[in-house]
Amino acid sequence: MDLLVVGSVALDSVETPYGRVEKALGGSAVYFSVSASYFTGVGMVAVIGQDFSEDYVDFLKSRNIDLRGLKREHGLTFQWRGRYDSDLNEAKTLDTQLNVFEDFRPLVPDEYQEASVIFLANIDPELQLNVLEQVKHPRLTICDTMNFWIEKKPDQLKETIERVDILIINEGEARQLSREYNLIKAYQKISSYGPKTLVIKQGSYGALLFTPSSIFSAPAYPLESVLDPTGAGDCFAGGFTGYLAKSQGSAEKELNKAVIYGSVMASFNVEDFSLGRLRTLTLDEVEERFESFKGLTQF
Amino acid sequence: MDLLVVGSVALDSVETPYGRVEKALGGSAVYFSVSASYFTGVGMVAVIGQDFSEDYVDFLKSRNIDLRGLKREHGLTFQWRGRYDSDLNEAKTLDTQLNVFEDFRPLVPDEYQEASVIFLANIDPELQLNVLEQVKHPRLTICDTMNFWIEKKPDQLKETIERVDILIINEGEARQLSREYNLIKAYQKISSYGPKTLVIKQGSYGALLFTPSSIFSAPAYPLESVLDPTGAGDCFAGGFTGYLAKSQGSAEKELNKAVIYGSVMASFNVEDFSLGRLRTLTLDEVEERFESFKGLTQF
Repeated sequence: MDLLVVGSVALDSVETPYGRVEKALGGSAVYFSVSASYFTGVGMVAVIGQDFSEDYVDFLKSRNIDLRGLKREHGLTFQWRGRYDSDLNEAKTLDTQLNVFEDFRPLVPDEYQEASVIFLANIDPELQLNVLEQVKHPRLTICDTMNFWIEKKPDQLKETIERVDILIINEGEARQLSREYNLIKAYQKISSYGPKTLVIKQGSYGALLFTPSSIFSAPAYPLESVLDPTGAGDCFAGGFTGYLAKSQGSAEKELNKAVIYGSVMASFNVEDFSLGRLRTLTLDEVEERFESFKGLTQF
Repeated sequence: MDLLVVGSVALDSVETPYGRVEKALGGSAVYFSVSASYFTGVGMVAVIGQDFSEDYVDFLKSRNIDLRGLKREHGLTFQWRGRYDSDLNEAKTLDTQLNVFEDFRPLVPDEYQEASVIFLANIDPELQLNVLEQVKHPRLTICDTMNFWIEKKPDQLKETIERVDILIINEGEARQLSREYNLIKAYQKISSYGPKTLVIKQGSYGALLFTPSSIFSAPAYPLESVLDPTGAGDCFAGGFTGYLAKSQGSAEKELNKAVIYGSVMASFNVEDFSLGRLRTLTLDEVEERFESFKGLTQF
């Protein structure tokens, strides 16, 4: 098990102009793990309730995701209900039921403490920090967050960010966290907080990667049909982190490739609701789309 | 003279959070011509008033722009006043004085009628069509337009578009013209109107190029300091069209490179107000930035 993720497992009810699902498999740890599982072994630290279907557990196991860190508690699984309008850029949250997630205290199993790569999905920064304290000497730590934590727990968030190598956030969050509109200035500010590498996700416009010596720009893969953007950011992080865990390096060239693998995984995920597309996706299809990113960007 | 442009010459008064200029050199034909002049000979068809400074004329001549199609009429030059807020994405027009531009009837000089490449900058589509009718057998015709003409003269615009090879518009305009939100579907619709090649400008997110057989994505060059975005789209079109006029081909690879040269020219232009940056820009700097786009996109 090379890669450890802590995050949420959820039952998502989502409506877009192209359809809807009720209590479908979701959550940051799920999207991340399934996406990363195309590249490396993943162990998940998360919590589910009594209502979480064994079918979903079996699907995660079929992706070789190590579930020794997945605890089933009394109560219901975390539920999220949201809607997207036709531009599909921003989810409107209609309802959130934390349920068993409310008292979630991540406990990293002994077997995971040697994980070389750690991904802290978007949860309370205090829990993220708590996980970092339970692991021994990871080679690479990567973290996500969101506007809610930037506003509500800025000090705790800074404490977590200070200790990670790479931060992955979206454009609006990068501006909010740094208080800089210009993204180069935002990177300079954020790198002074700790992480020397920053990935800024730009939705349908792709992603930017900043390191102390370079900037890399990846487009989003143009798709004629996008059904549901839920989980795209976590699938991006899964492809990015999974590739870095597998490649054993984080040289500039590997980071660039990792961003493209992240974009590849996100592009497949939005083609269907929930994890529908990832249930049938093959590694050959992943490699084929990686190649087609070359045609899309090279001149 | 390989390349003929018809468009506006203006005196722009612009305010951004980073400064302001009063009655500075501007207009689509000016930005386009100066940008294209790095690649090829350009002839300009446009109109100026009595107040248009000889210094500005000399600057255009210093770029080897052929001004036999530039008419000086009685009255004042076209004036535009606008303001940008801190995101610099959209200009707010505060005032427009058409002046001599109101009665502008483009007359293509005999010497220009053999031009092999024609660029129709953003003006009344009836005037664009009129110019097309005055040229003999151009190898390549390229056209820009804006939301105003899409709304006010949709039929005349379609008549012009039907006759051009390449349309260059921004993302919002592509959606408005095609009535499709998805950009692949927008391309399919627009190509059914006539132009088989479509360039969609996305401001600080770069540009997309659609052809019947490929999609190419170019990032915007990341800049730490952007002073004034006025003219960026016309400079993009100038670099794009100028390179295609010079390269004598429009094979897919050449089109991709042309998009990058367009992005290079736009990126320099926004570094200063009016044409400030282009007054000192060298061809070596252009080639250097073209190369750095490789580092920005290749993996």
